[in-house]
Amino acid sequence: MIVSLITDYGLADEFVGVCHGVIADAAPNARVIDVTHGIRRHDVRHGALALRNALPYLPVGVHVAVVDPQVGTERRAVAVRCADERILIGPDNGVLSLAWERAGGAQEAVEITRSPFRLEPVSATFHGRDVFAPVAARIAAGEHLREAGEPVDLDQLAVLELPQPQIAGAVAAGHALLVDGYGNVSLDLTHEHMLALDLTLGARVDVNGRDATVVQTFADVGSGELLVYEDAWGAVALAINRGDAAAELGIEPDAEVRIARR
Amino acid sequence: MIVSLITDYGLADEFVGVCHGVIADAAPNARVIDVTHGIRRHDVRHGALALRNALPYLPVGVHVAVVDPQVGTERRAVAVRCADERILIGPDNGVLSLAWERAGGAQEAVEITRSPFRLEPVSATFHGRDVFAPVAARIAAGEHLREAGEPVDLDQLAVLELPQPQIAGAVAAGHALLVDGYGNVSLDLTHEHMLALDLTLGARVDVNGRDATVVQTFADVGSGELLVYEDAWGAVALAINRGDAAAELGIEPDAEVRIARR
Amino acid sequence: MIVSLITDYGLADEFVGVCHGVIADAAPNARVIDVTHGIRRHDVRHGALALRNALPYLPVGVHVAVVDPQVGTERRAVAVRCADERILIGPDNGVLSLAWERAGGAQEAVEITRSPFRLEPVSATFHGRDVFAPVAARIAAGEHLREAGEPVDLDQLAVLELPQPQIAGAVAAGHALLVDGYGNVSLDLTHEHMLALDLTLGARVDVNGRDATVVQTFADVGSGELLVYEDAWGAVALAINRGDAAAELGIEPDAEVRIARR
Repeated sequence: MIVSLITDYGLADEFVGVCHGVIADAAPNARVIDVTHGIRRHDVRHGALALRNALPYLPVGVHVAVVDPQVGTERRAVAVRCADERILIGPDNGVLSLAWERAGGAQEAVEITRSPFRLEPVSATFHGRDVFAPVAARIAAGEHLREAGEPVDLDQLAVLELPQPQIAGAVAAGHALLVDGYGNVSLDLTHEHMLALDLTLGARVDVNGRDATVVQTFADVGSGELLVYEDAWGAVALAINRGDAAAELGIEPDAEVRIARR
Repeated sequence: MIVSLITDYGLADEFVGVCHGVIADAAPNARVIDVTHGIRRHDVRHGALALRNALPYLPVGVHVAVVDPQVGTERRAVAVRCADERILIGPDNGVLSLAWERAGGAQEAVEITRSPFRLEPVSATFHGRDVFAPVAARIAAGEHLREAGEPVDLDQLAVLELPQPQIAGAVAAGHALLVDGYGNVSLDLTHEHMLALDLTLGARVDVNGRDATVVQTFADVGSGELLVYEDAWGAVALAINRGDAAAELGIEPDAEVRIARR
Repeated sequence: MIVSLITDYGLADEFVGVCHGVIADAAPNARVIDVTHGIRRHDVRHGALALRNALPYLPVGVHVAVVDPQVGTERRAVAVRCADERILIGPDNGVLSLAWERAGGAQEAVEITRSPFRLEPVSATFHGRDVFAPVAARIAAGEHLREAGEPVDLDQLAVLELPQPQIAGAVAAGHALLVDGYGNVSLDLTHEHMLALDLTLGARVDVNGRDATVVQTFADVGSGELLVYEDAWGAVALAINRGDAAAELGIEPDAEVRIARR
């Protein structure tokens, strides 16, 4: 069974490697997939969105997400079984909630803060190593979820709230959800919002006061030009062909983005 | 069978991890080797050179290279079998061509743009996930190349052209092919060019107007001094011991570099 | 058997991927764990500390550490068997010594500079690929240490010296040993030093002239406040909740850090 990892640990330090060591020790045959360790530090929503987007492309397994500004405090650590049999593991701060919505809903949850599978002594600051990785490994190696901790009511699990886009007349007011390393900006607008504005391929639009074209891919516009497209996750997105849309438009995650027909 | 990956995706986002997920799903027993994901964005030549250099050190397998500024347009996606049985997979823009030259030449090629092994729907912007990774995985899992797509004439494959160095009198005029993360600069000059200039270990040379010494390794000169050496790929290269030659000499990829006996 | 890797190669280039290729070729069944490739360039002590810290969390195996400013010169390459059966491999410049102290001491060592397992020709600048990776792989695949090279007297191995902290009256004068990617600063002070100063949880202290509190975890102080805590490796450490202590206090590795009761 695979174990996938998403964290905000970065790759400059040995944090991720040590988690791999802990998993290899407890689950020598588990395949570990590093989804990304580039989540912005403490950005729970970024981690939640990355996990939600990646999940359909990962084999069913144990999926760990650690973005944990409250590590070492009373916040719970949890493991959650989804309707599609995936097991999600992480702090109970919402980082898992978009993923279980995508995976058919949460079916069972246990608190693993004092799991019998944890490494002792548990440090106050590195639960990736001491709690999340060893619990994930033991479940990947065949242990039952109910052996990993104490049952938690599903309605007590933290759920992440996302902003809601608005359509008013010929204007869609959405938000920047994700900005990738190229500066491409994924919005909380979808194909349906575009249809509501009657925007199809080739349409000219205004994006926060800038001209753009609705197209399929980057090279459909000239170098340096702004495009609106459906990205690989099915979201309406902004990009500049061979450029950095987020930087040029001054868009940070959560910023409002207004798209209007021209 | 191994699958190796070279991309310009970087590691900040989940792109690489998602490709790993797709491969693990279709080829649970394939070993995946991340050669590098640090190719400069859209720099096809950088990707082609990195693949060519790494190839002899990788087990024979399926080797994916994705540097793809024209993703989603009419450019073809291809899989190419080399004389040494390696399979190369990527966009048909030259990124694979230096590698098959190194691997004994291309023997068979198929267009995989609409491969039966691809993930549907294919996005317009992430063919690493939807085309290259799943096709690579299915071939690594035992499918035949000819099942992966439609035959392509070998002479229709895109080939990358490299600049040619010149020797004139006591001066070798070459080019910066690769600049690594340390600022070491690999040139399109070889041992034979050095012999033509009668430059052997210990020789003093002029490099773009700066003093340098021909030596074997970094620590053969003082800290901060410029050296000319044969790098680990067999190319003549420039470095500054404990420094950054590319930055200090203002050399970017493709720049002309002139080496003369002093 | 696992092979773990620590280097200062970074991930921007293909150096690490090529080492993976070499290992996969010689030891197709070995699991490779990248502990970190983010060691500061040429910082032998950083590598030695990272290896020492990570080691207890890695399965017993072959552990490679390459931080090698003298690559290609007369410095030896060595493989060292520890009391706990781990094999350490790297340049003989001290980068392995803290690890074998942690692992019960060195029991046997061989010089592998001209190991029969090396790749020939050995380049002057990339012994990770040509010496360390192939020797590690062959040992992981079952070869005996004594077949890897010529015996070396244990008392001839290079040993890293660390600065020593001082306690004088109510002041502990220690040093910054490690600075992680978050700017958290790990010191050469331990729980025992804190007890000697009678500093327990909740104590107010002066750190290089700045107010701080002794607590368990980041979120135990307000955002932007300085804390003193025991880090995940058991060292006394400095952090700023949601901030960068090293940057704000101007602390670089090796800097003196004075902690006094207020």
